[in-house]
Amino acid sequence: MPKLLIFSKRLDEYRQLIEAAHLPDLEILTAPGLDADILFGEPDLIRASFASFPDLKWVQANWAGVEPLLDPALRCDYILANARGVFGPLMSEFVFGYLLLHERKILQRLEAQKEQRWDPTLTGTLRGKTIGLLGVGSIGAELARAAKFFGMHVRGFTRSSASCPDVDEYFHADLPAFASGLDYFVSVLPNTAETRHIVNADVLTALPDHAIFINVGRGSTVDESALVKALETGAIAGAVLDVFEQEPLPAGHSLWSAPNTFITSHTSAPSFPEDIARLFIENYHLYLAGNPLKYVVDFERGY
Amino acid sequence: MPKLLIFSKRLDEYRQLIEAAHLPDLEILTAPGLDADILFGEPDLIRASFASFPDLKWVQANWAGVEPLLDPALRCDYILANARGVFGPLMSEFVFGYLLLHERKILQRLEAQKEQRWDPTLTGTLRGKTIGLLGVGSIGAELARAAKFFGMHVRGFTRSSASCPDVDEYFHADLPAFASGLDYFVSVLPNTAETRHIVNADVLTALPDHAIFINVGRGSTVDESALVKALETGAIAGAVLDVFEQEPLPAGHSLWSAPNTFITSHTSAPSFPEDIARLFIENYHLYLAGNPLKYVVDFERGY
Repeated sequence: MPKLLIFSKRLDEYRQLIEAAHLPDLEILTAPGLDADILFGEPDLIRASFASFPDLKWVQANWAGVEPLLDPALRCDYILANARGVFGPLMSEFVFGYLLLHERKILQRLEAQKEQRWDPTLTGTLRGKTIGLLGVGSIGAELARAAKFFGMHVRGFTRSSASCPDVDEYFHADLPAFASGLDYFVSVLPNTAETRHIVNADVLTALPDHAIFINVGRGSTVDESALVKALETGAIAGAVLDVFEQEPLPAGHSLWSAPNTFITSHTSAPSFPEDIARLFIENYHLYLAGNPLKYVVDFERGY
Repeated sequence: MPKLLIFSKRLDEYRQLIEAAHLPDLEILTAPGLDADILFGEPDLIRASFASFPDLKWVQANWAGVEPLLDPALRCDYILANARGVFGPLMSEFVFGYLLLHERKILQRLEAQKEQRWDPTLTGTLRGKTIGLLGVGSIGAELARAAKFFGMHVRGFTRSSASCPDVDEYFHADLPAFASGLDYFVSVLPNTAETRHIVNADVLTALPDHAIFINVGRGSTVDESALVKALETGAIAGAVLDVFEQEPLPAGHSLWSAPNTFITSHTSAPSFPEDIARLFIENYHLYLAGNPLKYVVDFERGY
């Protein structure tokens, strides 16, 4: 009989949602029992104690990013699944919220309003603008779909895949060439050895000076000193940064006050318990039937 | 040979765009000539002098709203066409920019950023929220399409039409019942005798207290004193107002400083000259061939 232990800051919510599904044969442990074979929850909380479960078979993370569990010093004798598929639409809301904030001069209108000043200056439009997606997995594909909805031209940068129908133009090499001519440059890359500081000074200076950089992937993919310099010198027009090399971003860090930069504290795609519980339930049925789980993470590749 | 006179603050842009189309037989008058049979441009500028054109056949407005030309004291012995079809996507950008600003707590994050404070509080999402569209013409239909894209439930209020595939639920009477349960209430109604103050205290108090009211139609459709009261008493949670009974909104008007209210100075759907010129060119070919024009305004109905 499978035994589940939940590690989460939102333990009660998750327990209720999973209990409500009346999953066959499942025992949900209420006290930390070392006989659990399934762990569910936040990767950082699981990491703290998962070494002590001898029967561990499956860890279902409720985040997309499972870096805390990928340290080569840690065990990898179990199936690690992350949360996927649910974040794309949320990420689209985030990215397009900030794109529209910029194009439609929402903050400029607010300034005029404070002075009770009628401000009919023309705004921009997303239509016809070019967005570049660094990484076109399930989240990138969702961003591409939203970009096409708003009439944008979409470039995608991937290692080799070129299967997203909403990408107009694929690049697989020469990141500065990809960056050149973009109005918006969005990174959705995970943290791997290959992506470290891939957004560097060369890439940032290849962007037009009116371009906005958005990072909803991982902080490690950006050379933050180069980014601060690009923002401070006006090499790019602004940035929306959800993720950082060090999180929380330390007080006093130059990014907090870089020109036209928005710091969003790793909130671009919140894990809503309803979404993640649904995903666990789906995977539990596969687990029980002995079938391959969905969203399994490759320990080597790192995603 | 058709003779066109352009009345516009962006005269040079429009002239260049129309000239570049090399329209057959068309003479573009460079000095105000009273023999013009076609007038093109801003309705308020055209109104000032269009009485003096004896050969007037067609006025192509470059706005959607043609109220300045609908005064019953004015001539109506010509074909009046307005600009349509081009504003829906721009209006969607505007409306969803503000919806996302609200759901994704963009201003709250900015406040945290000023204090260099990491703020991981959960945001909302548009998915699953209910939007009510007061008026489902071409602009309303475009807003409905965007709402479905973001996973919202869509109510539409119309006189009788029920043809938009993106509206989940139609209402044709009882506006308070329509308003009840909405998260977002968007008016796209034109200014007509029937729509005057249709958004009144009854409707506003029927909205849930977390609802946001957005007006991208016409200012005359709203009882502004009732709206100020609803905002100040917390009967609704906020408003995004692009149009007003008097424009520019006078300094000192209570709406400028009403709680959680955004004043956007009639900029929700800018007339981009490329769009409007394309529309004129299309109509000119119909005019020359003696065919019915597109987007003809009914002087009686007012739109």
